[in-house]
Amino acid sequence: MRTQVAIVGGGPAGLLLSHLLHRQGVASVVLESRDRAYVERRQRAGMLEQGTTDVLRESGAGERLDREGLVHHGIELRFGGEGHRIPITDLTGRTVTVYAQTEIVKDLAALRLADGGDVRYEAEVLAVDPSTGTVTFRQDGAAHELTADYIAGCDGFHGVSRRAVPDVRTFARDYPFAWLGVLADVAPSTDELIYAHHERGFALHSLRSPSVSRLYLQVAPDEDLAAWSDARIWDELAVRFGTPDGWELTPGPITDRSVTPMRSFVAEPMRHDRLFLAGDSAHIVPPTGAKGLNLAVSDVTILARALTERYASGSEALLDAYSATCLSRVWRAEHFSYWMTTLLHADPESDAFARRLQRAHLEYVAGSAPAMASLAENYAGLPLK
Amino acid sequence: MRTQVAIVGGGPAGLLLSHLLHRQGVASVVLESRDRAYVERRQRAGMLEQGTTDVLRESGAGERLDREGLVHHGIELRFGGEGHRIPITDLTGRTVTVYAQTEIVKDLAALRLADGGDVRYEAEVLAVDPSTGTVTFRQDGAAHELTADYIAGCDGFHGVSRRAVPDVRTFARDYPFAWLGVLADVAPSTDELIYAHHERGFALHSLRSPSVSRLYLQVAPDEDLAAWSDARIWDELAVRFGTPDGWELTPGPITDRSVTPMRSFVAEPMRHDRLFLAGDSAHIVPPTGAKGLNLAVSDVTILARALTERYASGSEALLDAYSATCLSRVWRAEHFSYWMTTLLHADPESDAFARRLQRAHLEYVAGSAPAMASLAENYAGLPLK
Repeated sequence: MRTQVAIVGGGPAGLLLSHLLHRQGVASVVLESRDRAYVERRQRAGMLEQGTTDVLRESGAGERLDREGLVHHGIELRFGGEGHRIPITDLTGRTVTVYAQTEIVKDLAALRLADGGDVRYEAEVLAVDPSTGTVTFRQDGAAHELTADYIAGCDGFHGVSRRAVPDVRTFARDYPFAWLGVLADVAPSTDELIYAHHERGFALHSLRSPSVSRLYLQVAPDEDLAAWSDARIWDELAVRFGTPDGWELTPGPITDRSVTPMRSFVAEPMRHDRLFLAGDSAHIVPPTGAKGLNLAVSDVTILARALTERYASGSEALLDAYSATCLSRVWRAEHFSYWMTTLLHADPESDAFARRLQRAHLEYVAGSAPAMASLAENYAGLPLK
Repeated sequence: MRTQVAIVGGGPAGLLLSHLLHRQGVASVVLESRDRAYVERRQRAGMLEQGTTDVLRESGAGERLDREGLVHHGIELRFGGEGHRIPITDLTGRTVTVYAQTEIVKDLAALRLADGGDVRYEAEVLAVDPSTGTVTFRQDGAAHELTADYIAGCDGFHGVSRRAVPDVRTFARDYPFAWLGVLADVAPSTDELIYAHHERGFALHSLRSPSVSRLYLQVAPDEDLAAWSDARIWDELAVRFGTPDGWELTPGPITDRSVTPMRSFVAEPMRHDRLFLAGDSAHIVPPTGAKGLNLAVSDVTILARALTERYASGSEALLDAYSATCLSRVWRAEHFSYWMTTLLHADPESDAFARRLQRAHLEYVAGSAPAMASLAENYAGLPLK
């Protein structure tokens, strides 16, 4: 079996790449180890940079996003019993949009299938060969081989693609905390996201829709979910958000809960021979800055352009530049994500000096025009060049 | 012996306080343990915020400063073989001025003595009593007592004043590096300060005058000065500054050298009863952000205002607010100094992830308008309220 681009992984990165390539007349096959329902159900990110919505919209994948996405113009930082709004749009001219990764995956999968795309679920990739472009996978109990000009490794942090790169160099940081995330069937108690710093730990009030709230609590990395009853979760959230100016958190039925570790990770380079890593297979950010999904989208946008140029003109210039182009953006996002994370979390390893410094930092970010603008331009996302 | 304000320490903080009080008709006695020549010779800071020059000028202590001070409008960040100018004045509307602490001390001491001020050198303070306002000191081999309404502890990090506060809470951080600083009789190779990050360590090209250069090298905290010949110092400086666009460092005779440890330190509160801590006795910053002397000046400016109000109207409101007013500014400067220090030094304890993050951070600061403006507003100094 042959194709032009073999795409390992059918999450948002793989599906979007396949979609973008199709629009430019480049053929691809997507191999996804899980079934479709699983992929479309797993809870992940939900805050899109304007650059991300632009790519989806311009490629014809923004129809439901435009209808259901919630456009936001700011976020709130909350600490010391007070809220401080960061007016993202006033400061950057750009917006961010609440629209869950699950919905993007559904939209893209439906589009790909409607367009006759070859997206294979329950197709487990066993090996990729960066030098020959061969992908070995198992489907329906049998082993198959797919040979391609190029392979896109969009199979996430635990996928096989990165492990096929012999000379990859990795950079990593684990944090001494995790996020306990819940979905709740209750109208959000806020119009804009609230990032709260409290001595007991970070809390985030996000949302999925006008009737579904998404909330997070900083917990220990080895936190036992069983120790968290619904009541304990709501009580702890209420303590950390406080009641500035009479604000109150409205609890409701929790429908999903999970603990997410916090990790920074980068693999360099992002290309090896015919293999191009994209998204989580190449880099992980802690979720505080909402950069993970957006980076995956920018990676595959850059990759789609490079592959399109390659097939249109024969030039490999953009393919050759792929790794450096992506990594510059990746490290910016890594730094910002690390910065937001350390700014807002309670570090159990910090001393009294570090805690005072953190408070001074928070007060500065909430009170200085340049500091707010710096947060805002990173949060909104730097434009794709 | 009695006075209104007993000032422990005759460095820039103590002398300026005495001068500012005198201008408002408040009497003080300054007790300095060293002799005058020593105090006027010890090399310290040399970069003044506009707020600092404003205070000196408005109080009549700016005559030579106006004549000899070098007004600067920017600094250079240098890394990766390239220089990046931060246009401080364009970004903030404020300037910074190169004028050495030694010169300020000479100017203030001369003024105080011309004004009939009581400044006692070689007067070693043995004890201060915050509750009675009594200061015990030894001069000419005899013990003396000075009783005052208020005591200002301007006697630096190692002075007795802070130790007289029973319930002081301290916050500290030591850094795994120090600065080897040299004075050289050679015209500076630069018009504006150069802050250089290099994998071998930080370097700073500063200056004292059009014919005297001040240079610093990051070294180990326990560095042996004897291991650094003049040639080795100039060679290492040349490596770290590099030769962007053909720029070159001009060496010259080294006339002074020393190793300065890097420390962050804050004591809270800054007032106890009749005793007010000011300057280094209450807080230390690593020198990277050039904030130490400027903080001492803002402390005593705030204290002089508060004491003036007390004697003019009887109100203790500003005295009661002194500690909180200063500490808000102190922690901002502590954070900025920590930030500049970690941004620019090579941390021997950092891992590969931290080094990549540092480089991404440097590139961001050198390339983002809000990030540059944030550095600039901190470097130029926040206005005294």
